[in-house]
Amino acid sequence: MKPHRVEALGDGVFSIAMTLLVIEIHVPQVEAATTASLIAALGHMAPHIAMFVTSFLVLGTFWVGHHYQFASIQRVTRPLLWINIGFLCCMAFLPFSTAFFGTYLQQPVAAFLYGANLLAGGGFLNWQWRYATTGRRLVASDLPEQVIKSAKRRVEAGIVVYGAATLLAMLVPVAGLVLFVLMPFAYILTGRGE
Amino acid sequence: MKPHRVEALGDGVFSIAMTLLVIEIHVPQVEAATTASLIAALGHMAPHIAMFVTSFLVLGTFWVGHHYQFASIQRVTRPLLWINIGFLCCMAFLPFSTAFFGTYLQQPVAAFLYGANLLAGGGFLNWQWRYATTGRRLVASDLPEQVIKSAKRRVEAGIVVYGAATLLAMLVPVAGLVLFVLMPFAYILTGRGE
Amino acid sequence: MKPHRVEALGDGVFSIAMTLLVIEIHVPQVEAATTASLIAALGHMAPHIAMFVTSFLVLGTFWVGHHYQFASIQRVTRPLLWINIGFLCCMAFLPFSTAFFGTYLQQPVAAFLYGANLLAGGGFLNWQWRYATTGRRLVASDLPEQVIKSAKRRVEAGIVVYGAATLLAMLVPVAGLVLFVLMPFAYILTGRGE
Amino acid sequence: MKPHRVEALGDGVFSIAMTLLVIEIHVPQVEAATTASLIAALGHMAPHIAMFVTSFLVLGTFWVGHHYQFASIQRVTRPLLWINIGFLCCMAFLPFSTAFFGTYLQQPVAAFLYGANLLAGGGFLNWQWRYATTGRRLVASDLPEQVIKSAKRRVEAGIVVYGAATLLAMLVPVAGLVLFVLMPFAYILTGRGE
Repeated sequence: MKPHRVEALGDGVFSIAMTLLVIEIHVPQVEAATTASLIAALGHMAPHIAMFVTSFLVLGTFWVGHHYQFASIQRVTRPLLWINIGFLCCMAFLPFSTAFFGTYLQQPVAAFLYGANLLAGGGFLNWQWRYATTGRRLVASDLPEQVIKSAKRRVEAGIVVYGAATLLAMLVPVAGLVLFVLMPFAYILTGRGE
Repeated sequence: MKPHRVEALGDGVFSIAMTLLVIEIHVPQVEAATTASLIAALGHMAPHIAMFVTSFLVLGTFWVGHHYQFASIQRVTRPLLWINIGFLCCMAFLPFSTAFFGTYLQQPVAAFLYGANLLAGGGFLNWQWRYATTGRRLVASDLPEQVIKSAKRRVEAGIVVYGAATLLAMLVPVAGLVLFVLMPFAYILTGRGE
Repeated sequence: MKPHRVEALGDGVFSIAMTLLVIEIHVPQVEAATTASLIAALGHMAPHIAMFVTSFLVLGTFWVGHHYQFASIQRVTRPLLWINIGFLCCMAFLPFSTAFFGTYLQQPVAAFLYGANLLAGGGFLNWQWRYATTGRRLVASDLPEQVIKSAKRRVEAGIVVYGAATLLAMLVPVAGLVLFVLMPFAYILTGRGE
Repeated sequence: MKPHRVEALGDGVFSIAMTLLVIEIHVPQVEAATTASLIAALGHMAPHIAMFVTSFLVLGTFWVGHHYQFASIQRVTRPLLWINIGFLCCMAFLPFSTAFFGTYLQQPVAAFLYGANLLAGGGFLNWQWRYATTGRRLVASDLPEQVIKSAKRRVEAGIVVYGAATLLAMLVPVAGLVLFVLMPFAYILTGRGE
């Protein structure tokens, strides 16, 4: 079985989850529309807009990670299909946990749900890579060990940082939030060297 | 005519239906946001979240089934296009029947609608396979008989179990619900051997 | 320039428009949930559900027509891109005109908007085919004249029937509605011979 | 790394953003449904419908520009992936800024947000092309200089005109609006010569 339809389903879920994030940003209703009242209304929506950008970039990092794994995965087995579907389920849930976090930005419960969603996604991505590369099961037999380890390390680093951000957000909400927002940029910048 | 655009339309409808499931999970509005009130609010939403995961996995099983059929289907005729569109119509309807069932979890009517939706989808998938394989019409002439029978058996098993779950749900709602939730896992586990 | 990205955009818009149709079917809120009250609530939604199926099949017919044209179109020019984008704009608008018609089923205005939406889509599809086949501009130079004429006739027949259905719906709403519902089935059945 | 999955994600985001625009057009609720009251209700929605068509065509112009760049881009690097994701983030945000502008059509703040959204999109597209073509980094080494310059000029022209339209809309809202509506048609017509 060839991986192209798995990639197509994945690209579909990613592009839809990314675009659906915007649905939770509603047009504000103001009583008297003036420049001042609209700027104030947009100001109230700032957390939602910041979370839109953050989750868009988070989905971007997961998509890049998924993309890199499938650049090496050459065969698909039923277990891989299902690990992948579990992973996509986490991605599809993100518009909800994003909207929940954007609404209750100071609440540990909301930070926990958001962080747990990302951790679950990272866990499935890690599982997928371990499954595919154990004994080079689904990858080329001459795939350099370094490529396998590098991809593994990046997923594991994400899991560690998101775990830390989740814990931090439950203790000091603002600090955790800052970590969630910065995380995709850290991922982008550290990836430049590859 | 080549099957790749039929697959593209299918992958599109599947990925959108899967992701749209989350739209029915609304951010709860609580009067005073505290850890306790938010946990209680999430608790009230548990049926919707459980149904999200269930229907995501159900769509996953249908997608895997569709995927397997198109791994063998080599040609597309107009009747096949339309059987396939009927199948996709059932898949696209699932976000509604899922939300309806999640809202009225104890109601036989809601269980019936959900079960009927799945049965209709299974019926079309079964029809598609029969149509494609009768006289090896649209599949390779040397496709092993065993592959044809195995795919057929899995769809038929799904129809039987979903029929039973629907009937059971109308008599003992909780029991039917449990069967609906377990079904995708049974499908996943029994498919491991292939 | 190769047509595969135009097809990808098209398949994306079709699969999303088809799936978004379900968003306009809201879960009914009943005061006391019983089998009788839920059946009554579903009964009230019957027009919306019937319109969902009708528009899904209508989008199916347009997708099949688009599919057939691109099976012959081998090159893409800027004008073709834009005719195609105009066509897709009509398809993307259909979830609205469907919901509007489903809400005001007896109203000539709603029937007119729905019919005009379909006529505009048919008009663009007709324009695309004329543009692509005039002097065999974008199709194979040995494409049989019969294939060109047959595809042209089917689009033109659709325009005539939808024009008639729109006029009829403005005079005798029920009769026009029946014609809209039957039209995709007529298209499916008459296409069997090809 | 091959560009096909980047194109697939892009086509997905474009087709979804285009189709999601329709979600902001709600079925009007009238007390007594008559031909007159429904025409009046549709009349009230005219700005939203006009903005739907405008933004659909705007997304079309960006998609055509993206399409042309990827017709020449042969390799993908991490920085390109992220410039592209930034670009898609702007495209995914457009359904919100469109709905905001459609609701507050006379307000400078709404025109500014809409214009800024388009400018940001144009900025990323410009950045992507500069990045890809500097030293012919990701394009064929024999790509004619004229193709590089022509694509660059079109993006830059878009940035200049959208900048002017945004400024104008903040001073004379109606005039800026007209420019936003006409812009895609100007793009379509001036592209004919290529």
